[in-house]
Amino acid sequence: MIKQERAVRTREALIRAAAESFDQDGFTVASLTRISSRAGVSSGALHFHFASKAALADAVEEAAVVVLRALTHDAGRPGSSRLQHLVDATHRLAEALRDDVVLRAGFELSGEAARVPRTDLRVSWRDRVERQARRCEENGELREDVTVGRVVSAVVAATVGFEVLGVRNRAWLAPGTIAEFWRLLLPTLASDAVVARIRPEGTLRSAG
Amino acid sequence: MIKQERAVRTREALIRAAAESFDQDGFTVASLTRISSRAGVSSGALHFHFASKAALADAVEEAAVVVLRALTHDAGRPGSSRLQHLVDATHRLAEALRDDVVLRAGFELSGEAARVPRTDLRVSWRDRVERQARRCEENGELREDVTVGRVVSAVVAATVGFEVLGVRNRAWLAPGTIAEFWRLLLPTLASDAVVARIRPEGTLRSAG
Repeated sequence: MIKQERAVRTREALIRAAAESFDQDGFTVASLTRISSRAGVSSGALHFHFASKAALADAVEEAAVVVLRALTHDAGRPGSSRLQHLVDATHRLAEALRDDVVLRAGFELSGEAARVPRTDLRVSWRDRVERQARRCEENGELREDVTVGRVVSAVVAATVGFEVLGVRNRAWLAPGTIAEFWRLLLPTLASDAVVARIRPEGTLRSAG
Repeated sequence: MIKQERAVRTREALIRAAAESFDQDGFTVASLTRISSRAGVSSGALHFHFASKAALADAVEEAAVVVLRALTHDAGRPGSSRLQHLVDATHRLAEALRDDVVLRAGFELSGEAARVPRTDLRVSWRDRVERQARRCEENGELREDVTVGRVVSAVVAATVGFEVLGVRNRAWLAPGTIAEFWRLLLPTLASDAVVARIRPEGTLRSAG
């Protein structure tokens, strides 16, 4: 059992080290030697867990999708606003992109020219936004003239923009940036009565 | 003179071939051998013009900025809407990202982890959107409660999102996608009277 636990921990350390290398140097430049030494394991141990750099990238993406799923999980308390949940999900995404190198590397791999992603994080995010936007519509929170497709397109494009621009300049992922975006967008998405109940700065903390 | 003209043409062919390689394989994977053969010149000719792959990337970015400048140039006819000009500029950008490999590669180099851009296309675009948003404000086309910063942030994030997502799926750069974004955003940016005069699908052609 102890041996098995150690294997799990080694695997996790390798995924994290790979994410750090991909984030810093890009997938193509990242070297397996650097990844194994960063994880504090031998290159034999690395090859025991992962056959190739591509296999490591697949594992980073899988781990990132687990993070994304947790971020966007909608407990769906009756009576709560689905639109607020969508707003909160974008704040959680921005925060995690600032702090969680595995999620950030997962998204970055999605734009890597030299490799077709097995699990495309940006597409996963798009699917989650779409699901949430449909719930907003079902819940009667969207204006009559606003289509789900229009919401998805604007929210996904802007958040992917924040993600990409945030790689070089973290200010794009600041809570204030995300809140300002929602201040601009909310009044055209929802009726005045709904907008009055939504907090563009999110309900996770006193971020502004 | 003829010799000089040929040198100019060779340089242009190399920049275009480099852009095609960067767009297809990414900066790190792209090889100088492939670039020179793609351009139909000897590797000696390539090295006569460009000392390194990095120098070629600098040249692609410079050429892309020239394209960007032309796309966003505001003739500024008196009485015309600055906001319409901004809408038109985003349509021109999306069209050029679809069709012009040099512009597309210039933007892609901006997100390349292995290299710090000398001319960052996304930052240049941001600066141009900001200049245009200020003109909208000076022209009294923005709502009183809308700041220039909020407009810049939303428009730049969304267009960079369209650019990045468009690399894998061109539908993100379709005229209809850009128009839908403006349909959503315009009513919160400008007063009803101004919005009524703006065409979200742009005034360049009958795109919708």
